[in-house]
Amino acid sequence: MDDPHEWTIRDANVADMAGQRVIDFKAHTLHVLSYSAPIRARMRLSELRAHLFTLPDQPDRIPYRTSYYNENWGFCLSHAALEALPEAEYDVVVDSTLAPGVLNYGELFLPGQTEDEILISTHICHPSLANDNLSGIAVASALAQRIAAMPARRFGVRIVFVPGTIGAIAWLARNESNVHRIKHGLVITGLGDAGPLVYKQTRRADAPIDRVAAHVLRHWPTPSRVIGFDPYGYDERQYNSPGFSLGVGRLTRTPHGTFKEYHTSGDHLDFVDPNQLTDALNAIEAMLDVVQTDTFYLSQNPKGEPRLGKRGLYRTVAGQADRQRQEMALLWALAYADGQDSLLDIAERASVPFREIAEAAQALEVVGLLVDTRAKV
Amino acid sequence: MDDPHEWTIRDANVADMAGQRVIDFKAHTLHVLSYSAPIRARMRLSELRAHLFTLPDQPDRIPYRTSYYNENWGFCLSHAALEALPEAEYDVVVDSTLAPGVLNYGELFLPGQTEDEILISTHICHPSLANDNLSGIAVASALAQRIAAMPARRFGVRIVFVPGTIGAIAWLARNESNVHRIKHGLVITGLGDAGPLVYKQTRRADAPIDRVAAHVLRHWPTPSRVIGFDPYGYDERQYNSPGFSLGVGRLTRTPHGTFKEYHTSGDHLDFVDPNQLTDALNAIEAMLDVVQTDTFYLSQNPKGEPRLGKRGLYRTVAGQADRQRQEMALLWALAYADGQDSLLDIAERASVPFREIAEAAQALEVVGLLVDTRAKV
Amino acid sequence: MDDPHEWTIRDANVADMAGQRVIDFKAHTLHVLSYSAPIRARMRLSELRAHLFTLPDQPDRIPYRTSYYNENWGFCLSHAALEALPEAEYDVVVDSTLAPGVLNYGELFLPGQTEDEILISTHICHPSLANDNLSGIAVASALAQRIAAMPARRFGVRIVFVPGTIGAIAWLARNESNVHRIKHGLVITGLGDAGPLVYKQTRRADAPIDRVAAHVLRHWPTPSRVIGFDPYGYDERQYNSPGFSLGVGRLTRTPHGTFKEYHTSGDHLDFVDPNQLTDALNAIEAMLDVVQTDTFYLSQNPKGEPRLGKRGLYRTVAGQADRQRQEMALLWALAYADGQDSLLDIAERASVPFREIAEAAQALEVVGLLVDTRAKV
Repeated sequence: MDDPHEWTIRDANVADMAGQRVIDFKAHTLHVLSYSAPIRARMRLSELRAHLFTLPDQPDRIPYRTSYYNENWGFCLSHAALEALPEAEYDVVVDSTLAPGVLNYGELFLPGQTEDEILISTHICHPSLANDNLSGIAVASALAQRIAAMPARRFGVRIVFVPGTIGAIAWLARNESNVHRIKHGLVITGLGDAGPLVYKQTRRADAPIDRVAAHVLRHWPTPSRVIGFDPYGYDERQYNSPGFSLGVGRLTRTPHGTFKEYHTSGDHLDFVDPNQLTDALNAIEAMLDVVQTDTFYLSQNPKGEPRLGKRGLYRTVAGQADRQRQEMALLWALAYADGQDSLLDIAERASVPFREIAEAAQALEVVGLLVDTRAKV
Repeated sequence: MDDPHEWTIRDANVADMAGQRVIDFKAHTLHVLSYSAPIRARMRLSELRAHLFTLPDQPDRIPYRTSYYNENWGFCLSHAALEALPEAEYDVVVDSTLAPGVLNYGELFLPGQTEDEILISTHICHPSLANDNLSGIAVASALAQRIAAMPARRFGVRIVFVPGTIGAIAWLARNESNVHRIKHGLVITGLGDAGPLVYKQTRRADAPIDRVAAHVLRHWPTPSRVIGFDPYGYDERQYNSPGFSLGVGRLTRTPHGTFKEYHTSGDHLDFVDPNQLTDALNAIEAMLDVVQTDTFYLSQNPKGEPRLGKRGLYRTVAGQADRQRQEMALLWALAYADGQDSLLDIAERASVPFREIAEAAQALEVVGLLVDTRAKV
Repeated sequence: MDDPHEWTIRDANVADMAGQRVIDFKAHTLHVLSYSAPIRARMRLSELRAHLFTLPDQPDRIPYRTSYYNENWGFCLSHAALEALPEAEYDVVVDSTLAPGVLNYGELFLPGQTEDEILISTHICHPSLANDNLSGIAVASALAQRIAAMPARRFGVRIVFVPGTIGAIAWLARNESNVHRIKHGLVITGLGDAGPLVYKQTRRADAPIDRVAAHVLRHWPTPSRVIGFDPYGYDERQYNSPGFSLGVGRLTRTPHGTFKEYHTSGDHLDFVDPNQLTDALNAIEAMLDVVQTDTFYLSQNPKGEPRLGKRGLYRTVAGQADRQRQEMALLWALAYADGQDSLLDIAERASVPFREIAEAAQALEVVGLLVDTRAKV
């Protein structure tokens, strides 16, 4: 059979002839090459070297290495530690099992008013690394709490926590008959470093989430950037593979492989800033707000401008500048309420955040000037 | 009943106890708050102040203020004049009537060969202000004279002179069954100040006039600018409201509210430059020329280039540079005379003014190389 | 009859009273005005001057002049030579014939697997000029040799060598019933000067060759530029005339009329650089490669990424950087193998040269991951 084996790791160490552990998995999980085959042997350093992985240009950090597809065993350690090892004999132990097993993933579904769904996916396969990928797990969890606490939503929200690549492919395989319900999605991870938010577009850059994310980020108070799809990265590769082609984008901060802490012991908790996590969480929430709320309104008074003052719509906020913004939002919402432009279309025309137009439209709906076309259906 | 009352103003003044008029509508119409309710009272300056409007940062100018939707009375005066008023008692008179009446507007229709129409609209409701809005009235009147003096036109031209907002809405309401004939339109005003021409696009920026205006201005000898639609401004708001959505753009110079003379006594005749009015008039005429003239031609000799020299088309102007331009215009008109490109399309491709291509096409039509597809219908 | 006469030139000279030839066609073919009518006369220099053409601002060069449409005779000479001529009597001889004859052109057809054709056209009417037009003839000939030596091709390639304008029109007239087979084409000439490659788009800039040429030049190692169509230039005018509208672009280096050697004796063999000719030939070959090779592939494993390592696709080249490029090309080819994107579409998305994606797709086809949709038909 072709299925990859499940790896169980219990211990891994290199000890000198005095029994002193000079590399010890119990001290840091990164010390063992992930998916290492078991071994128990004595060898000289010269022989062991082919199984030791270091970062000569970051001599104090332990690299994170895997060997999923070539059976191998090995240890990762700081280059400084390697340099300090005397040329001598060592006892090498990897106490692991590679055997038929299971692939575990987490999944939470918060149902919506329709069958349509939003997918949030984060990977869970990097041991002891904080930004990539604990930050994604943390933000996805906090997002789930926020959404669960909100009133009814149009789209159900499905949050999956999967091992990278193999986990996403397994999840897709098991859910193939239902993935047509996924209308929007985001792969999230790497959200805690100091870099700006980076949205990576879907495969054809034509999914609704692409517009939504670009809109939200354009008006976001902190710096951000939008990049095109490329077939390398995280699980957006699987969700966007041509046989599924789901409208799933990706939100990170500094992309994988482009910061020096990436896949090293330098990606620890101090590398992650809680404010950056919160900022990312807020941005994702704002994106989902657009997706959940966007609709088309029809003006009930479309021939010439209706009087807003007599309907009490000119006095609802205090400051002069705020009031002007709000009045302009009312005028924008009215001017394009012909069923051709959605609230997002109008916000884009007006160059203001979606929420300003959404609130203006809701105020106009209350006084009967607009009707939500979706409500009619 | 809901209809707004008609306002008649006969006199308005503030007089001191010696009977001296310290604020006098007869001296400047701006001194009375437009739509002021009648009043006749004696009060101290401290009480009167709430009804006095000035411009502290332009202390020598009288502001223009209205109070259409809140019944009120008041006076506008220069801040310097206010500062000079002694703290004393004054006799206050607004001799006005607010009563059921009529809304007057002017309308001129110059018929065309088809039922299709071009609408030119200018507002007439600002008393004693020159750029906003006498300049619009002046240019519209001169345009009417020029058009009336021209030979037959394809589109009829309808020129309306209406009070802002309420007048345009009233005109639309009375003409609702005929406005489908309006294929192109321009709201014009504020054409006499020193600023560049500014064309404001229609609501969806997809009306023919949007392309025409941008084309004409791109090749215009004086500076100009094109701006997007927003739901604030002049009567383009009404013509573009979603229930009508007429293809009506707007031509001004410096937009309302962005020059310091705006809505003050500083917007007087000296603020308006006759050369700027003429330049604007010429630009509008050039836009209407494109609208009236644009058509699709079909080449009668489409396979390989016809010889122009033997048809006398290589010698009609004198200068070398002019001749080259004219020859190139002939070649452009021939190269795209396949019924897919209009003259404007070709002018855009060639990056030359519409009229150069139009004249080349007409010369080619004379010698039988092109046929006007419209003429055939 | 209207057909232009064929011109035969045997000799042309101006001799002084001592019998010395002061202008002599046998010394340089440019010395005679092309299409000169025959003459045999004695006249003073003052009378002769109206028939002498020079370049006062390039006094050592002989201009190239023609008089196809006005019957005339004349001589071209360097301005220095003209200045040196004594004011005296001269014997003038043009020994030519203008008489009914034939128009010759060359044509080579290399058949393809389908009826569709690629047209390569170059003009052959400029005597003694190297860049314009011998360079085009040379590159077209070398291209023919290369194509003839290649294995079977999808499109037939038709290479025509025609006198400019009249030759292209004559060729089109004789082949009118077959030109629908021409799916792509290039007019080539002026390829040997020091300037960058310049691709001129087809009439509507929407032919496949427009995309192909822009793509190839974007990734070309030497400088290049793309310009829009205009109805002046070489035989692209005829192939693009509205009655044919073939998708024929043009490749030159410095465009005609914009280098000072143009149409002068300065455009001789030393003005042409063989490396520039080879570079142009390579670029044309790369463009034809895209046209001949581009196709749509379908993934046979479209749901999630297939494993490439176990299929031996991760090890085929040596260098690390090259291997990464090749691996990325494999991923790009897989990610868009859904029948919507051609190889060129994918190369454009990936911002890499077409050939990299084509080779990746072919490697994936070998292992059964992709199927060529064209092969199925």
